[in-house]
Amino acid sequence: MRQKRFFLEENEIPRQWYNILADMPVKPMPMLNPKTREPMTVEDLSELFCEECSRQELNQTDRWIDIPEEVLERYAYYRSTPLVRAYSLEEALGTPAKIYFKNESVSPIGSHKLNSALAQAYYCKQEGVTNVTTETGAGQWGAALSYASKVFGLESAVYQVKISYEQKPYRRSIMQVFGALVTPSPSMSTRAGKDILTRTPNHQGSLGTAISEAVELARMTPGCKYTLGSVMNHVTLHQTIIGLEAEKQMEKAGDYPDIVIGCFGGGSNFGGISFPFLRHNFTGERNTRFIAAEPAACPKLSKGKFEYDFGDEAGYTPLLPMFTLGHDFQPSNIHAGGLRYHGAGVVVSQLLKDGWIEAMDVEQIESFEAGCLFAKCEGIIPAPESCHAIAAAVREAKKCKESGEEKVILFNLSGHGLIDMAAYDQFLAGNMVNH
Amino acid sequence: MRQKRFFLEENEIPRQWYNILADMPVKPMPMLNPKTREPMTVEDLSELFCEECSRQELNQTDRWIDIPEEVLERYAYYRSTPLVRAYSLEEALGTPAKIYFKNESVSPIGSHKLNSALAQAYYCKQEGVTNVTTETGAGQWGAALSYASKVFGLESAVYQVKISYEQKPYRRSIMQVFGALVTPSPSMSTRAGKDILTRTPNHQGSLGTAISEAVELARMTPGCKYTLGSVMNHVTLHQTIIGLEAEKQMEKAGDYPDIVIGCFGGGSNFGGISFPFLRHNFTGERNTRFIAAEPAACPKLSKGKFEYDFGDEAGYTPLLPMFTLGHDFQPSNIHAGGLRYHGAGVVVSQLLKDGWIEAMDVEQIESFEAGCLFAKCEGIIPAPESCHAIAAAVREAKKCKESGEEKVILFNLSGHGLIDMAAYDQFLAGNMVNH
Repeated sequence: MRQKRFFLEENEIPRQWYNILADMPVKPMPMLNPKTREPMTVEDLSELFCEECSRQELNQTDRWIDIPEEVLERYAYYRSTPLVRAYSLEEALGTPAKIYFKNESVSPIGSHKLNSALAQAYYCKQEGVTNVTTETGAGQWGAALSYASKVFGLESAVYQVKISYEQKPYRRSIMQVFGALVTPSPSMSTRAGKDILTRTPNHQGSLGTAISEAVELARMTPGCKYTLGSVMNHVTLHQTIIGLEAEKQMEKAGDYPDIVIGCFGGGSNFGGISFPFLRHNFTGERNTRFIAAEPAACPKLSKGKFEYDFGDEAGYTPLLPMFTLGHDFQPSNIHAGGLRYHGAGVVVSQLLKDGWIEAMDVEQIESFEAGCLFAKCEGIIPAPESCHAIAAAVREAKKCKESGEEKVILFNLSGHGLIDMAAYDQFLAGNMVNH
Repeated sequence: MRQKRFFLEENEIPRQWYNILADMPVKPMPMLNPKTREPMTVEDLSELFCEECSRQELNQTDRWIDIPEEVLERYAYYRSTPLVRAYSLEEALGTPAKIYFKNESVSPIGSHKLNSALAQAYYCKQEGVTNVTTETGAGQWGAALSYASKVFGLESAVYQVKISYEQKPYRRSIMQVFGALVTPSPSMSTRAGKDILTRTPNHQGSLGTAISEAVELARMTPGCKYTLGSVMNHVTLHQTIIGLEAEKQMEKAGDYPDIVIGCFGGGSNFGGISFPFLRHNFTGERNTRFIAAEPAACPKLSKGKFEYDFGDEAGYTPLLPMFTLGHDFQPSNIHAGGLRYHGAGVVVSQLLKDGWIEAMDVEQIESFEAGCLFAKCEGIIPAPESCHAIAAAVREAKKCKESGEEKVILFNLSGHGLIDMAAYDQFLAGNMVNH
């Protein structure tokens, strides 16, 4: 029988994250303090984030960062996640390509987001923090942080992008099961929210507005830190567990990827699966292609400008050197709520600028076509975000069909779409539009 | 680090199902043809089910039944499922008991139901069947059969209990993604449905009404067979993969269960986890307790009568010797749609009668209290059905706390509750009632 899934033994599970900053041939430009225009320091960052995450954010020297024992213990609840050979999808496409996916949807929370949520909540607890705030789009990150907070005994408050709060009510419910306080953003509970609503009544929210509110609440609350589900270096660092596992699992499968694909919102799942493989491109040992699959409705990598911009709508965050559509960009209401963000992480932006990675933009309908095909073949209903990665994999597999090349394609299935069925209903009814 | 999850190597995965009928000290009384009152034959059953399932249904001699290679290949998409030690739950309860659960929620469809759906769809395809019909309550079985039908190239039509169709719209969407035709039952599309609606306008449906409609459609449609998600012997036979895996995994964990628990609707997940362990009670080698956890609102094992009854509302099925609340029983609208069935499988009924297993009834609110505690500890939001098994495990673990006994408790987590968040909303808002 053909082997379908590849796991790691307990003693093979990585015990360190990979810090790509140590290996980048061209380091990214510094994040700037918007008041002084000076590079941000660990002290500056620690006003917002916990100290350990702030240190990790600026660490450009240590290639490997130890995963704390307590975090490893919680990783063991669901890791290693399976590396899966998508035989059925290959057969449906009639492609000679070998398609693999890393199945992060089996995390108890349903996505890769838990990998960083556990780390951030753990460090906060260690440093005496009692409360955490965050933003969430589709709710994958919010659900992960809510659970991780419960695990380590922290209170959590989540600002959820209003359109997602309404489109995906079950995600709010999941956060509430874990005891989180969930508020749709923009709200009247913060100055940032009030300002946004005054300027733009009926604003449907974006990750940018929700970040502003979560940052403001953290700043105004003693014992409280802000946490983030993507964009920042330390978040992507924690997500490298995905690619590090995948590398060992691909070895068991007897293959090495020619193409690695992740959907792209802020960069955490794309970086998570890509960076461990990318390090072998840096050394010249490999020549893998890395494709960030972003929605055509929010194409910061394909059509954004590389410049210093804020990470949030209100301008509370440091200035980040990144590809951006502008921090007041209002994305249209695509179902992939996790990809509705105006900017790309600093590291990914630099890597794109330097030609190490590629961007591919995908229309909403194409993403759901690919997602439904994948579901019928592999049995798993993918998150709307992950559908973008699948669509990119399908494009590449079709190219292989034309050229006859037996390329090895690996993509990250960042999460399942069981909470997003309203989007599938719309697609199946033929009512979905591109934006 | 403590080992949290236990898997099987590919070569350790069972390649045969366990047929408890071969070992039962007292065989069940025969199913009867309602017209002739004669025992049902394979030929009689084959009018409804495919032939191989009909043979399996009546097979009382072969202890082990080979799992077809094609089914094993699809099992490999998600099996072995993890056996998990619930350390966090143990700590939260302060119990000396060791609590394990078999996590069937990681199946791509979200529950154990796929184990039998794949087998039934495969046999139908082999026998030249083109269409299958079935009933579904909460939708777990319907989703599993829809996907399995797609895998083996069959068309599927699912009658979903009307109250569940309305309470859990996402399950309908999932079935539709896999190409199933889904109809709320009772409907006007069958004579049985029309009769029920004429007798009882606004009937909210039950598994009994949906079975009648699915059976009628199968009988009226050439090339079409009926499939069932629980109750029948062959369904539970396929589910023994759960207990057979668990037995090997418990060995890896260095334990053997003193108590095995499953929630109870028709018996497929309870039998699936229990029967492989129960065989060692038959031989006197072990003295494990087996607890079927049923809803207090539908207590056929605790309060039903043991008698011949129909499996459906309209009286289309064979007469089954079973514990039953009467085939026209209208269960109240508890959220555990999969447990709203009036009768118990024939084998389980006989085992209860003979004292090999126990029943425990659980009120709805207690089940959700247990489910929320489990979610906070283990990160997985359980299906309302599975909450009953958790509640029973919690009761037993609390008894151990009082007595100081270090019992080993194993329960089956039959599915996740991500499609059932409306029920959790109601619980968290304090609006849930017992029935």
